Amino acid sequence: MSRPFGSGNLFADVHAHLADEQILDLVAAPGIRITRIVSTGHVTDWQTSDEDEWVLVLQGSGTLRFAGNDRMLVLGPGEWCHIPAGARHRVEETDPHQPTVWLAVHFPDGEA
Amino acid sequence: MSRPFGSGNLFADVHAHLADEQILDLVAAPGIRITRIVSTGHVTDWQTSDEDEWVLVLQGSGTLRFAGNDRMLVLGPGEWCHIPAGARHRVEETDPHQPTVWLAVHFPDGEA
Repeated sequence: MSRPFGSGNLFADVHAHLADEQILDLVAAPGIRITRIVSTGHVTDWQTSDEDEWVLVLQGSGTLRFAGNDRMLVLGPGEWCHIPAGARHRVEETDPHQPTVWLAVHFPDGEA
Repeated sequence: MSRPFGSGNLFADVHAHLADEQILDLVAAPGIRITRIVSTGHVTDWQTSDEDEWVLVLQGSGTLRFAGNDRMLVLGPGEWCHIPAGARHRVEETDPHQPTVWLAVHFPDGEA
């Protein structure tokens, strides 16, 4: 076995106040990226990706808004959403009282 | 947008006693599989996969043992481990007092 076994704790080094949303790569391999995201009240601009994104909230909460059908989804601990490639969306709100810890998995569009 | 936005809660329908470890596919696309696993004290046999596996414990605890270097790793909530393809390992113990909820992401060996 030449490769190391990566391991860690998603709740380690979570800062209460960040200037910007913090994105940490846990796995970056061909065809997949697994990241931890920490938001301390941050929101995002509208965005569209050419990859699918699967997001999970581990702590705090995050509100996703989707363009088109104007669907809104509030995620709390344990709640996940699969955002298909091409879906225009934004993070409209994150918990103002505590850091929101997300896990995000990016992978190629299954329908491409 | 033709595809639905899948969403759910990893803590929904977690049963306190299961005859076998329960595996639920959340995403199954070419090159990636994201599953929720619930163990109620279950262990596994030794296993080796030709894919990488990234596992996270959300609730409870799980002890992984790896062959060769005989390394052991106890994972609690928020703790993750990247198990490379080819690494012989087993789940040696899971929390006997409450269900252990895992997230597992399977993807092709990055070094293949």
